Amino acid sequence: MQQYEAGQYDIIVIGAGHAGCEAGLAAARMGAEVLMITINLDMVAFMPCNPSIGGPAKGVVVREIDALGGEMGKNIDKTAIQIRMLNTGKGPAVQALRAQADKFQYQHEMKNTLENEPNLTLHQGMVDELLVEDGVCTGVITMTGAIYRSKAVVITTGTFLRGEIILGELKYSSGPNNQQPSIKLSDHLRELGFDMERFKTGTPPRINSQTIDYSLTEIQPGDEEPRAFSYETTKMITDQLPCWLTYTNEHTHRLIDENLHRSPMFSGMIKGTGARYCPSIEDKVVRFSDKPRHQIFLEPEGRHTNEVYVQGLSTSLPEEVQHELIKTVPALKNARMMRPGYAIEYDAIVPTQLWPTLETKKIKNLYTAGQINGTSGYEEAAAQGLMAGINAARNIFGKEEVILSRSDAYIGVLIDDLVTKGTNEPYRLLTSRAEYRLLLRQDNCDLRLTDLGHEIGLISQERYEKFTKKKADIEAEINRLQKTILKPNEQTQAVIREAGGSELKDGIRASDLLKRPEMKYSHIAQLIPSEYELADDVIDQVEIQIKYEGYIEKSLQQVEKLKKLENKKIPEDIDYDAINGIATEARQKLNEVRPLSIAQASRISGVNPADISILLVYIEHGKIARVSGDE
Amino acid sequence: MQQYEAGQYDIIVIGAGHAGCEAGLAAARMGAEVLMITINLDMVAFMPCNPSIGGPAKGVVVREIDALGGEMGKNIDKTAIQIRMLNTGKGPAVQALRAQADKFQYQHEMKNTLENEPNLTLHQGMVDELLVEDGVCTGVITMTGAIYRSKAVVITTGTFLRGEIILGELKYSSGPNNQQPSIKLSDHLRELGFDMERFKTGTPPRINSQTIDYSLTEIQPGDEEPRAFSYETTKMITDQLPCWLTYTNEHTHRLIDENLHRSPMFSGMIKGTGARYCPSIEDKVVRFSDKPRHQIFLEPEGRHTNEVYVQGLSTSLPEEVQHELIKTVPALKNARMMRPGYAIEYDAIVPTQLWPTLETKKIKNLYTAGQINGTSGYEEAAAQGLMAGINAARNIFGKEEVILSRSDAYIGVLIDDLVTKGTNEPYRLLTSRAEYRLLLRQDNCDLRLTDLGHEIGLISQERYEKFTKKKADIEAEINRLQKTILKPNEQTQAVIREAGGSELKDGIRASDLLKRPEMKYSHIAQLIPSEYELADDVIDQVEIQIKYEGYIEKSLQQVEKLKKLENKKIPEDIDYDAINGIATEARQKLNEVRPLSIAQASRISGVNPADISILLVYIEHGKIARVSGDE
Ligand SMILES: Cc1cc2nc3c(=O)[nH]c(=O)nc-3n(C[C@H](O)[C@H](O)[C@H](O)COP(=O)(O)OP(=O)(O)OC[C@H]3O[C@@H](n4cnc5c(N)ncnc54)[C@H](O)[C@@H]3O)c2cc1C
Ligand SMILES: Cc1cc2nc3c(=O)[nH]c(=O)nc-3n(C[C@H](O)[C@H](O)[C@H](O)COP(=O)(O)OP(=O)(O)OC[C@H]3O[C@@H](n4cnc5c(N)ncnc54)[C@H](O)[C@@H]3O)c2cc1C
Repeated sequence: MQQYEAGQYDIIVIGAGHAGCEAGLAAARMGAEVLMITINLDMVAFMPCNPSIGGPAKGVVVREIDALGGEMGKNIDKTAIQIRMLNTGKGPAVQALRAQADKFQYQHEMKNTLENEPNLTLHQGMVDELLVEDGVCTGVITMTGAIYRSKAVVITTGTFLRGEIILGELKYSSGPNNQQPSIKLSDHLRELGFDMERFKTGTPPRINSQTIDYSLTEIQPGDEEPRAFSYETTKMITDQLPCWLTYTNEHTHRLIDENLHRSPMFSGMIKGTGARYCPSIEDKVVRFSDKPRHQIFLEPEGRHTNEVYVQGLSTSLPEEVQHELIKTVPALKNARMMRPGYAIEYDAIVPTQLWPTLETKKIKNLYTAGQINGTSGYEEAAAQGLMAGINAARNIFGKEEVILSRSDAYIGVLIDDLVTKGTNEPYRLLTSRAEYRLLLRQDNCDLRLTDLGHEIGLISQERYEKFTKKKADIEAEINRLQKTILKPNEQTQAVIREAGGSELKDGIRASDLLKRPEMKYSHIAQLIPSEYELADDVIDQVEIQIKYEGYIEKSLQQVEKLKKLENKKIPEDIDYDAINGIATEARQKLNEVRPLSIAQASRISGVNPADISILLVYIEHGKIARVSGDE
Repeated sequence: MQQYEAGQYDIIVIGAGHAGCEAGLAAARMGAEVLMITINLDMVAFMPCNPSIGGPAKGVVVREIDALGGEMGKNIDKTAIQIRMLNTGKGPAVQALRAQADKFQYQHEMKNTLENEPNLTLHQGMVDELLVEDGVCTGVITMTGAIYRSKAVVITTGTFLRGEIILGELKYSSGPNNQQPSIKLSDHLRELGFDMERFKTGTPPRINSQTIDYSLTEIQPGDEEPRAFSYETTKMITDQLPCWLTYTNEHTHRLIDENLHRSPMFSGMIKGTGARYCPSIEDKVVRFSDKPRHQIFLEPEGRHTNEVYVQGLSTSLPEEVQHELIKTVPALKNARMMRPGYAIEYDAIVPTQLWPTLETKKIKNLYTAGQINGTSGYEEAAAQGLMAGINAARNIFGKEEVILSRSDAYIGVLIDDLVTKGTNEPYRLLTSRAEYRLLLRQDNCDLRLTDLGHEIGLISQERYEKFTKKKADIEAEINRLQKTILKPNEQTQAVIREAGGSELKDGIRASDLLKRPEMKYSHIAQLIPSEYELADDVIDQVEIQIKYEGYIEKSLQQVEKLKKLENKKIPEDIDYDAINGIATEARQKLNEVRPLSIAQASRISGVNPADISILLVYIEHGKIARVSGDE
């Protein structure tokens, strides 16, 4: 290929999947001249798997992305066909929004947003190589010989690196959904010295809704209350489509058992590691052989298509078996499969090769985000894309990069897990991964992150002022309730009786009365109405923050303790081999991960408290000077 | 691959492009159980090139398709962003509708129509082989080992057969728009003994509308009068988007000249033959080197995208040159290219291997339609798809197949040209190809073909009744005007004067008065109003049929003459080698084309009048008995 100089940009983003879109938009909106290169412009923000956004942990991430000024929340609000708050019966820490997307509209809407972003150039192309000079990434070279130069590069290549589709006995080189795979870039990353792992993921068949017997399913409608992910959305969807629930049965399981020898997962054909937390149906049947049935959710892929996503039936069994598999479910007895499920294997980067900024340790100004970092899921990808975009832009503008802590956001947990612990399988966010679940609620994402989003420059002044007012309203109201003493007079007792509680003996702070499980803010407001009308979300916060005050306080104390350790920074150029007494395994891991703080070091598996003590002493006694100095 | 029996259908259609969609829908609506298999369900009815339907000749074809009960007209009516009648200043024979499509909506709408068709199963898959038993096609085998059996198969694989994308010095195996190419099926067709040719076509770059300086272009708005392709459409688009016209200039042409050595068309890299009638810009600059400028139409690709199709700049020059090329046009000085243009080479079947029914001569019950037959263009593809679908269905139902003659429809011209003359380059319909242009107008497609569409079973009873009424209204009104004598009284003379004509000396038939160029039907109606209110399209027909009566009559006489020759059928199993006196070239051609009638034989180039005379004598004198009998 004859090469040519194709232009100079601040930042180049490779890929326009969920990670790439956030990275490109964030950097452009922060003032960087951004070039986004992607293999196929018709596949921007494509959802190769479930047509839905959110759910436990992931739903919180979408709101965190929104609070930081990202796009995913807005885009799904514009294109949802259904939206629900999950776990409304449970505590606020496990509640989460989940939306079904019109998959095609989601793509078109996101693409159009990219097209209209002033500092952003969207170009179809295949990146084959990076330009690296003196350990610094300075651009890319594409298949057509175009050399684009830049100050930083963000790679967000998803499942395309040496992608291979596997379906029964069939295996062929391909990106997801039969797109072109990215082969040269994968080889090139290995040549540059990156450790890669081989992962796999899978997707279920799609069937024609006209061939489903819905009378044999349970309907799953959307919420009646209007909801949205983004704090900026004002137009909620009104015309929702339902999903439908049905189940596998012993016939399904027997069929799978009988065909296990043809399953590429069990025949040894699939070498890549799959995610434990989104197993294929053959996996579930084998691992939970005592379970008589598994859930199947039938999810429409959009408003103007009959394709229905069969959630729960992810599989790479031969097409032949898939046809029969579907028919074992009574509601799907006559269902026609439109496309078979398949598995895909791909290369990912071992994420411990990244700083918590998502910059690679090997090559400066090179960032990676999304599924290439070993994660799985649109929201996980978008979150990383946003942070990589923000940090690439701050880096080239000479600003300090942004690292979210584990107590700031699920995004902090995600990235810290990746760069500190690495992952042996596609990583998914789960609520159980977050120590501070009670702090990382979906209802307070804006309170946690809007200040930062504004400082970064991704939250408009108008939005910020609205936010500041909301925060002030919440504080003022909590304050008022904490200061107001309710006397045990007839009015108060009546309200309490009505709520089903036991009457007051003495006066009580309004806030303390609200802590009683049976009391709602509305009861308190009957007794001491606020002078101003308070917005619903302000009232929600007042209630949650007062009711859960004790738990929240405890979490905050733990966070404080941790913060002290986080503040004990480890110099980037520390020489672990020069420190006596550290165990061999710990030394190896420390050398690999190169944690930025004592707190991070303490989270590395294989690094024990004894090693941490030695490290602390070494750093605190100034001995570090010896390492970087040349005495 | 382990193979399996995947099901039994009446008809299998390979491909869901413009040909495949019509073939599948027609056959299913005629009562056949149809399976459509296509490589990628997200690319149904995809437009790899210009986002528009119709134009000279092609616009007439779309209405012919509609009159026969096809889908293209309805689908574009539902998804157009602009619609115009071309050549309104000229005679009715050259008028044509042309619409800009929302390319993505066009796909989704068509896909959804397929999904909702009761007898039709749409399945994603790649056909690798045909099943052929005793010279009869009985099914297909896919990449996943699925064996589908059927009574007939229609191949509509477009530009996918051994597709190769070429862009400057770059050449790689690919379908259009970087889709998977179809390689095995192409090899298989060659193994089955089909002669294949290698063609090429190309597409221009797409640019971002935000980066165009529209002030340097001329606006091309849609028609104000509401219009539609389909005779069934009642909801016309109201919110049209404009297109824009600009030009290349000497800078553009110089740049191309300077880079001709890098053009795959001139460097010898492209081996396939391109269409003379839609040349690349490099081709135009070379062939028309004296032309100072060429038109460029900027056409939006949809309502929710900024991608703009640069009609007129089709090119396979290196990406580097394309960037510069765009910038030579003042309105595009700052334009950003979103995807480069490219050329694609592909295998096509030599179409003289087909009967005029589009069944292959080599293999019974196997039909081919669309670009695989050597044509180019969505409308040409759709027309063939429709006829192949109709004929495949009639064949399996034991009905006589349908062959449109050159005087019935442009579709007749298209297919007769293909199977009689073959083509050395991608074939496009042009008005000049039709001898009976005056009969094959866009305004009378329904009058020409609805009866046939109804007989075939693709026109609903309701529509047919509406049509019959329209036809009767036209006849009655023409009749009335022919019978009514207008006297040279004051009222008549006043109307004539007002229209700018010269006064009557004697009485005159109303129809004869209408023939005068300055007279409109509305003038006549002032004098002798109809008892009933006549629809606009009835009035149009009355006017056209009366005004052009002489020309139409002449054409019809020619058609009559030709029909006599068409009626002189040549038996399918004639042995040309047994006929003395036919010239060698003619014998070769006759053997290859195997014309069905003397008329068709006479249109084969290389078959001269002398040969035809010998052939006529041979057939008329019953000598044909000798050929098939075993005397
Ligand atoms: C079959 C399948 C099943 C899945 N199942 C699940 C599941 O069950 N649960 C779940 O949570 N997640 C699942 N996923 C994962 C989910 O789709 C991804 O996590 C998410 O899309 C990742 O986003 P991303 O931005 O990292 O990558 P992607 O969305 O894959 O985007 C990658 C982008 O990079 C571009 N690109 C790649 N290489 C190059 C190059 N060399 N040059 C230019 N551009 C390039 C591509 O064109 C694309 O735009 C599945 C994915 C697939 C493919
Ligand atoms: C780059 C490019 C530029 C073009 N430029 C012009 C132009 O300037 N002017 C013009 O008039 N026309 C142009 N065309 C042609 C126009 O796009 C085609 O004529 C039209 O789309 C043909 O319709 P079709 O149905 O025959 O094929 P297509 O629309 O190509 O559809 C083919 C279908 O077959 C399927 N398929 C292929 N192989 C298999 C298989 N083995 N198994 C299952 N399914 C299979 C594909 O998935 C697809 O659905 C261009 C085409 C391309 C690609």
